[in-house]
Amino acid sequence: DRRGIPEAVLAEGKRPAETAALATTALETTGRALVTRASSDHAAAVREGVGDVAPDASVDHDEVTRTVVVHADGYEPPALAATVAVVTAGTADAPVAGEAEVVAREIGAAIDRVEDVGVANIDRLLDQIERIREAAVVVVAAGREGALPTVVAGLVAAPVIAIPVSTGYGEGGEGAAALAGALQSCTVLTTVNVDAGFVAGAQAGLIARAIDGAGTAGDDGDADGDEVDGAGVDGAGVDGDE
Amino acid sequence: DRRGIPEAVLAEGKRPAETAALATTALETTGRALVTRASSDHAAAVREGVGDVAPDASVDHDEVTRTVVVHADGYEPPALAATVAVVTAGTADAPVAGEAEVVAREIGAAIDRVEDVGVANIDRLLDQIERIREAAVVVVAAGREGALPTVVAGLVAAPVIAIPVSTGYGEGGEGAAALAGALQSCTVLTTVNVDAGFVAGAQAGLIARAIDGAGTAGDDGDADGDEVDGAGVDGAGVDGDE
Amino acid sequence: DRRGIPEAVLAEGKRPAETAALATTALETTGRALVTRASSDHAAAVREGVGDVAPDASVDHDEVTRTVVVHADGYEPPALAATVAVVTAGTADAPVAGEAEVVAREIGAAIDRVEDVGVANIDRLLDQIERIREAAVVVVAAGREGALPTVVAGLVAAPVIAIPVSTGYGEGGEGAAALAGALQSCTVLTTVNVDAGFVAGAQAGLIARAIDGAGTAGDDGDADGDEVDGAGVDGAGVDGDE
Amino acid sequence: DRRGIPEAVLAEGKRPAETAALATTALETTGRALVTRASSDHAAAVREGVGDVAPDASVDHDEVTRTVVVHADGYEPPALAATVAVVTAGTADAPVAGEAEVVAREIGAAIDRVEDVGVANIDRLLDQIERIREAAVVVVAAGREGALPTVVAGLVAAPVIAIPVSTGYGEGGEGAAALAGALQSCTVLTTVNVDAGFVAGAQAGLIARAIDGAGTAGDDGDADGDEVDGAGVDGAGVDGDE
Amino acid sequence: DRRGIPEAVLAEGKRPAETAALATTALETTGRALVTRASSDHAAAVREGVGDVAPDASVDHDEVTRTVVVHADGYEPPALAATVAVVTAGTADAPVAGEAEVVAREIGAAIDRVEDVGVANIDRLLDQIERIREAAVVVVAAGREGALPTVVAGLVAAPVIAIPVSTGYGEGGEGAAALAGALQSCTVLTTVNVDAGFVAGAQAGLIARAIDGAGTAGDDGDADGDEVDGAGVDGAGVDGDE
Amino acid sequence: DRRGIPEAVLAEGKRPAETAALATTALETTGRALVTRASSDHAAAVREGVGDVAPDASVDHDEVTRTVVVHADGYEPPALAATVAVVTAGTADAPVAGEAEVVAREIGAAIDRVEDVGVANIDRLLDQIERIREAAVVVVAAGREGALPTVVAGLVAAPVIAIPVSTGYGEGGEGAAALAGALQSCTVLTTVNVDAGFVAGAQAGLIARAIDGAGTAGDDGDADGDEVDGAGVDGAGVDGDE
Amino acid sequence: DRRGIPEAVLAEGKRPAETAALATTALETTGRALVTRASSDHAAAVREGVGDVAPDASVDHDEVTRTVVVHADGYEPPALAATVAVVTAGTADAPVAGEAEVVAREIGAAIDRVEDVGVANIDRLLDQIERIREAAVVVVAAGREGALPTVVAGLVAAPVIAIPVSTGYGEGGEGAAALAGALQSCTVLTTVNVDAGFVAGAQAGLIARAIDGAGTAGDDGDADGDEVDGAGVDGAGVDGDE
Amino acid sequence: DRRGIPEAVLAEGKRPAETAALATTALETTGRALVTRASSDHAAAVREGVGDVAPDASVDHDEVTRTVVVHADGYEPPALAATVAVVTAGTADAPVAGEAEVVAREIGAAIDRVEDVGVANIDRLLDQIERIREAAVVVVAAGREGALPTVVAGLVAAPVIAIPVSTGYGEGGEGAAALAGALQSCTVLTTVNVDAGFVAGAQAGLIARAIDGAGTAGDDGDADGDEVDGAGVDGAGVDGDE
Ligand SMILES: Nc1ncnc2c1ncn2[C@@H]1O[C@H](COP(=O)(O)O)[C@@H](O)[C@H]1O
Ligand SMILES: Nc1ncnc2c1ncn2[C@@H]1O[C@H](COP(=O)(O)O)[C@@H](O)[C@H]1O
Ligand SMILES: Nc1ncnc2c1ncn2[C@@H]1O[C@H](COP(=O)(O)O)[C@@H](O)[C@H]1O
Ligand SMILES: Nc1ncnc2c1ncn2[C@@H]1O[C@H](COP(=O)(O)O)[C@@H](O)[C@H]1O
Ligand SMILES: [Mg+2]
Ligand SMILES: [Mg+2]
Ligand SMILES: [Mg+2]
Ligand SMILES: [Mg+2]
Ligand SMILES: [Mg+2]
Ligand SMILES: [Mg+2]
Ligand SMILES: [Mg+2]
Ligand SMILES: [Mg+2]
Repeated sequence: DRRGIPEAVLAEGKRPAETAALATTALETTGRALVTRASSDHAAAVREGVGDVAPDASVDHDEVTRTVVVHADGYEPPALAATVAVVTAGTADAPVAGEAEVVAREIGAAIDRVEDVGVANIDRLLDQIERIREAAVVVVAAGREGALPTVVAGLVAAPVIAIPVSTGYGEGGEGAAALAGALQSCTVLTTVNVDAGFVAGAQAGLIARAIDGAGTAGDDGDADGDEVDGAGVDGAGVDGDE
Repeated sequence: DRRGIPEAVLAEGKRPAETAALATTALETTGRALVTRASSDHAAAVREGVGDVAPDASVDHDEVTRTVVVHADGYEPPALAATVAVVTAGTADAPVAGEAEVVAREIGAAIDRVEDVGVANIDRLLDQIERIREAAVVVVAAGREGALPTVVAGLVAAPVIAIPVSTGYGEGGEGAAALAGALQSCTVLTTVNVDAGFVAGAQAGLIARAIDGAGTAGDDGDADGDEVDGAGVDGAGVDGDE
Repeated sequence: DRRGIPEAVLAEGKRPAETAALATTALETTGRALVTRASSDHAAAVREGVGDVAPDASVDHDEVTRTVVVHADGYEPPALAATVAVVTAGTADAPVAGEAEVVAREIGAAIDRVEDVGVANIDRLLDQIERIREAAVVVVAAGREGALPTVVAGLVAAPVIAIPVSTGYGEGGEGAAALAGALQSCTVLTTVNVDAGFVAGAQAGLIARAIDGAGTAGDDGDADGDEVDGAGVDGAGVDGDE
Repeated sequence: DRRGIPEAVLAEGKRPAETAALATTALETTGRALVTRASSDHAAAVREGVGDVAPDASVDHDEVTRTVVVHADGYEPPALAATVAVVTAGTADAPVAGEAEVVAREIGAAIDRVEDVGVANIDRLLDQIERIREAAVVVVAAGREGALPTVVAGLVAAPVIAIPVSTGYGEGGEGAAALAGALQSCTVLTTVNVDAGFVAGAQAGLIARAIDGAGTAGDDGDADGDEVDGAGVDGAGVDGDE
Repeated sequence: DRRGIPEAVLAEGKRPAETAALATTALETTGRALVTRASSDHAAAVREGVGDVAPDASVDHDEVTRTVVVHADGYEPPALAATVAVVTAGTADAPVAGEAEVVAREIGAAIDRVEDVGVANIDRLLDQIERIREAAVVVVAAGREGALPTVVAGLVAAPVIAIPVSTGYGEGGEGAAALAGALQSCTVLTTVNVDAGFVAGAQAGLIARAIDGAGTAGDDGDADGDEVDGAGVDGAGVDGDE
Repeated sequence: DRRGIPEAVLAEGKRPAETAALATTALETTGRALVTRASSDHAAAVREGVGDVAPDASVDHDEVTRTVVVHADGYEPPALAATVAVVTAGTADAPVAGEAEVVAREIGAAIDRVEDVGVANIDRLLDQIERIREAAVVVVAAGREGALPTVVAGLVAAPVIAIPVSTGYGEGGEGAAALAGALQSCTVLTTVNVDAGFVAGAQAGLIARAIDGAGTAGDDGDADGDEVDGAGVDGAGVDGDE
Repeated sequence: DRRGIPEAVLAEGKRPAETAALATTALETTGRALVTRASSDHAAAVREGVGDVAPDASVDHDEVTRTVVVHADGYEPPALAATVAVVTAGTADAPVAGEAEVVAREIGAAIDRVEDVGVANIDRLLDQIERIREAAVVVVAAGREGALPTVVAGLVAAPVIAIPVSTGYGEGGEGAAALAGALQSCTVLTTVNVDAGFVAGAQAGLIARAIDGAGTAGDDGDADGDEVDGAGVDGAGVDGDE
Repeated sequence: DRRGIPEAVLAEGKRPAETAALATTALETTGRALVTRASSDHAAAVREGVGDVAPDASVDHDEVTRTVVVHADGYEPPALAATVAVVTAGTADAPVAGEAEVVAREIGAAIDRVEDVGVANIDRLLDQIERIREAAVVVVAAGREGALPTVVAGLVAAPVIAIPVSTGYGEGGEGAAALAGALQSCTVLTTVNVDAGFVAGAQAGLIARAIDGAGTAGDDGDADGDEVDGAGVDGAGVDGDE
């Protein structure tokens, strides 16, 4: 991908074999692959499929974030100067926030994870706020009433991206209230869809790249950042995107 | 009304003459009347109608809250020991919060109004929090993403009642996000419908009465509090309620 | 918790081990714990986890309300003078009403449970109404069309809190009609989200505390009621709240 | 109309001249016409149009129900033995209930109107219940939370038809909660759409006709009731119906 | 039940033992019981429970309609003169239509079942229309776009009751389009909620009773029809209704 | 436009001068222009603007369909062999159906308009069905419950396109039920959005062109039909399309 | 079916035996049958049922599209000159697109399948666009944001039919955004419901037939195309349609 | 504001005098003010109010974007190196895009405006794509089906922010489809609410500042960028934010 975002395969709704085939193609054409929303069956199929064509590649499956990261042997990951803070309101937000973290890290950002600072106990947030202020971009995952992104955006100067999380039951449940809250925020922030950790993390990574590109002497300024494409491949997609 | 809540006439959707007739009946049977969502036409009609039957009654019309309060000559208002804090996030919340304030005061509560402490600037809220903690009941009016009731409820020990306010446009606009946020709150609070200042203020008043009744020596403990019915009338409704 | 509400862990969506860890921490820091929406796996894990660190603690699991209540050995429960009536329309409302009852009792309220007085047979309700009028606060759980909270609020002087219950199919099913009905009520009441028995019971408990505080000689009047924190601990949260 | 329902023209969204033309055709082909949701402009145009072709016809415009009833000179209205009770919760329900009343009366039913018996004051309803029990069919109009149809249906043996009325603001406003409540009713009743007084009144009239037909010696039993078509015309529609 | 509707237990969401207990109580107090939405576990429990207390009672379980009908030994079913037509658009509508049929028959109506006359093949409907015109009341079950009730109501003189059926996928699926279509019908009909066969059948039965009562010499005309309460019991509910 | 669809300017939401400018550009580049949803102010501005640059052009404004059709002097309209039937349920459907007719005629189709054949009176439809069967494509406009497109599609062999019309009030009103009904149809048809007469007429025109192209000797078969572009211009858009 | 569409049985929600019976009847009366949304149990039952009555019939079950196509021995399939392009955005769209393909082929159209040309990589689409332009009708299946139908319709002269696919999670998920996008398209296209591959393919087939009929010398021009009914049977439905 | 975003007053829903007072306070405390959604009455009041206290301040009112920009005499606007591209699909998107442009420019970004490149004519977009690729951040405004942000994000490496615009009628109208499309995008982008030009422009400005800060030698790297606060004031809010 020309944006430095790893070719991602959304495993949910695909069969393990299909998923493995797409991941393998991504690995072969771009030097790496990222599988999201993977079950252990998906992960096993990817591990086996990759093992067949690239026995020396690394395959990292994380059960909480449900991601599989595949790196070709000798793949040199990008490393950006900018830090992305990934902030959660509570433990239920961890898997989604983790998905964001994985993709932002793959793009090359440094990550600072700040957990359990939900607004029902504002002191915990205030205790961590200086740390959050250090980051160049802030991703905030929260479910239920989803007030945390607004409170954080009122306290930091960096761009904030909200991830509404699909918690809560009844009216506004399954993340609907949190999404509506992000869209109605009286501060400045942008949002992704409910549980779309991948998108938030990737957007944060794109901003980190833009900042990084600007800060690098001799950079051409167009934020294209070819240098972060670890394997030097052009990232041709492996599948129609829609 | 056996609950000490003034007989209220919702003017919106009624003709001025109808409204005046209902208010006059309330005045005559209960010693007072409260008209809500009144236009100036409604207010004028009430003033005239009351003037005809009770020339010495007081008629107070407030344009911001759109309420008209009518008291019979010699009406002795109830006075409870408990204070209701009425808190707003911003200026757009003032009319709705004011409606709550009017009815809570009519029930006899002392009122402490705290303005403009929305969560996008958490410091302003923290500056006022000790004052809010003094109240026996807290009513919080907020629109847009409506995060303030949750943050306040995390900071006080008293019962909190949220009033979602019909601000905001697009998805979750017109108070929908604020209502969903109140229903999804990860703290403990109850809510009323969007813009339902009357209901929130009345419920706060009922709680204040219950507290007051308990604190009064010799009280019968059933929170019935007949003594607060200023005019000593039984508050028979003037209109079918539904 | 400074409000006298037991630290509550919402088990649904958490793994048994996670739930047990949070409950144990709550027990150790506040002298008790409340787990809601617990499966038997959750309950077993909590029992085992608590057994390890506090073998003399009591662990009460109720299958109908899906709650687990944990009390440290020697924990002295608060006991308030005020009674909370918990009223249901039919048998399907029992589990949700029971969740409300458990938390209100933990806060210290006396409970009066009134069952099966739904509006389709108004005589049954009228038979019980004097009993309901004895309570200081009334919680009413009803699903389907959810008319009971309105009818009850028209008959009592105490504050009424509605719990819409997720019964019914088709349009307005799963509690949506009952919630909308509570929000549209032409009487005075506040509501919680569909099935949010915990929140309704906790708010009822907060009101009961406020009443109790007011009725106790020498009370400072700010409803803070530290004395009801059974274990005397400050109730520091065990988890980010959102 | 073979069902004895007067040919009805829904004026809303039609120009006065169009409305008048349709009403005139109905008058000429069926001996009468019913215009619903008519503004005064519509009414004036109908009066004028009818005056041109049938100067002796009666034209009755009612501003509250927004109906215009036109009868040919010498038109002999049907008169059924059965009574339809038309019950309202409050004054805001009167226009919609009145629309139902007009059409049921045109079909020939006797009407008993019972006003302002909303559920927030259940005693008023109980005071009138014997009267309602006299009717063969009961139409109940209520807005806001719309609990009245359910309570009435629990108290009478006759078929009950609910009309949700478009009152209330916020979530469930504009009659949505009342409609959902009718659909979720835990008693037996059927419903029409929000504000559809015409449909409810017409269905009540059809039932009254069926009852009347059954009770008339020599009736053929198929409820066709041609005899009630006052003008003896076959009621050919004047307009495509959809 | 004073309306002649059998005491009905909605099995869905209740445990088999609970269901059996409620059915048994109904049998003992009213001479019969009707269980709806029963699984085979529910049916088996009812059979066993009834067998214990009333070994001679009949227990009829129908798998398609998911109903269980229990009659005390010697129970004499009511028999009304009026016929209810139960019409379906296609085979998917059969279970819901069947539920309506069972309850209407229990109330005493004669039933005429007309199958598979959906509007996509209007000729089939026209072939059966004279038969449908014989009925005193017409119940029409249809899913998907739900056009059949409107077309039928345009062709018959009797009252029509629509049952939207929960078929269809995507926008308007699960019966939502069919319900909206019934509410928007440009003919006269009333509706029940999606899949609410019980309610439609019971309302049709109430109308049939009213007609029957009117047609019986010496009837008191108030449609109360006590004579149809087979067991002569007053039908006290066995469960809170809401 | 390469599809033979006239360059259309949606006037609603544009100022008269803007609309006139866009129409003038379309006229100059393609030999004609079509303005939809035009107020009389829009029409006047277009007439004036066109008068300035092309005094001999024809400008036809139709108040019912709210369209303005502009043809350059000497513009030779396309004429296809295929007929499009435009069918309405009732008079309220005429404006939307008319918009469809205008654009289909501009594309060159012959039009057969069939009015007022709504399903509540199925005989009227059956009387016209042979005429409808003559058409190559059938457009059916209906509001309220929107059953007509399904019934028509069950009776003809040609492709049917539904236009849901924004009539009806309450649940499913403003065309929502009619749209859902089209999407749920149990026959084969495609739909456009509520009131989107332009789109339906244009699609019908495209099909008519395809049929026409196929029937013309020597046609290249790719349905491109350049010959119908009256003015021989390539139809470059005058505005970004989205 | 008089339209040349094979009699189709929607297996979902039917039992295997029911499905087999309906398919067998269709085979016997029309020479073929099409079963959609078939599980392998449904397919097995159809195979067995057909085997019993018509051992020489062909039975083709496809697991991806979940269709079963049954042809009588000697059945001669229709063959139209017109081609239908079936275009997908990504692999998740394949099953739904395939359902459309099967039915269009049964109607006799030639099919050109174009895969994986989603708008996130517009170059892939532009690479295939000339191929798509060859088709007489274009069916476009896309989920998530569903932008592909609009982009394609801007690039081709033939009629375009959108199939929104039920992919995506959160707000607008399950195909809702794709459907809304098709309805809001700023180009000309018609749509079917989410996942309604059958309807889109059948409509495309009807258009192909109309084109074919027009291009055939001596055709009667009414698009009835009896000749394409392979088996020469009149296609009487085997099931009530709604 | 510590983020360099001008203190903004949302005029809609405020009285002109209120708006002027808030703008004046912002001017006095921060050296500038931005009023959004201003009518000409609002603009006139601001002009007058500012004239009273700061006669030398500049007051720029733009009717299309409905913004008023006020700068103190001698106010030195920030100037960042990074460019924000503001892209629209069609003319209806101009006002909302313009609002975004104004705020991004106030934060100091250079602006490149690209108009009318909607997806229905993909060539126009491809013609401009290199220009868009020059920008550091891309804001894309589109209504109706809102496909443009996705197509653009597939073609550029910079972060993309979508603004759904409230165009379109019927299902998905008023921007709902465009918002759902942005949330479902199969590329990487973040979104703001419908018509929220201010938020999108401000977020783009924050990213531009972060990039600028990184590219400036000696910058502290925390993106705080105090230097861009033209007037050197701390930007204390003038109004409660929520
Ligand atoms: N977890 C995810 N949530 C949302 N979008 C994703 C996710 N993972 C991948 N994607 C996006 O969806 C595309 C893959 O879709 P697919 O081709 O169906 O596998 C990727 O190129 C990403 O832009
Ligand atoms: N059953 C419940 N329903 C709603 N809220 C609950 C429930 N149980 C606990 N809570 C609230 O949610 C918080 C715990 O959420 P968590 O930290 O996710 O376990 C508690 O502090 C309560 O305020
Ligand atoms: N107020 C009303 N509400 C709903 N339906 C009505 C109303 N008035 C008339 N109708 C029905 O709508 C049909 C008239 O519609 P139209 O032909 O558009 O005037 C009548 O035949 C009635 O069945
Ligand atoms: N009445 C209408 N309804 C829906 N779409 C329309 C209508 N009139 C024009 N259009 C479409 O919208 C485009 C014009 O949009 P605009 O550029 O905003 O004027 C045209 O090219 C048509 O494809
Ligand atoms: Mg892909
Ligand atoms: Mg009243
Ligand atoms: Mg917690
Ligand atoms: Mg009509
Ligand atoms: Mg019951
Ligand atoms: Mg355009
Ligand atoms: Mg069929
Ligand atoms: Mg502000």
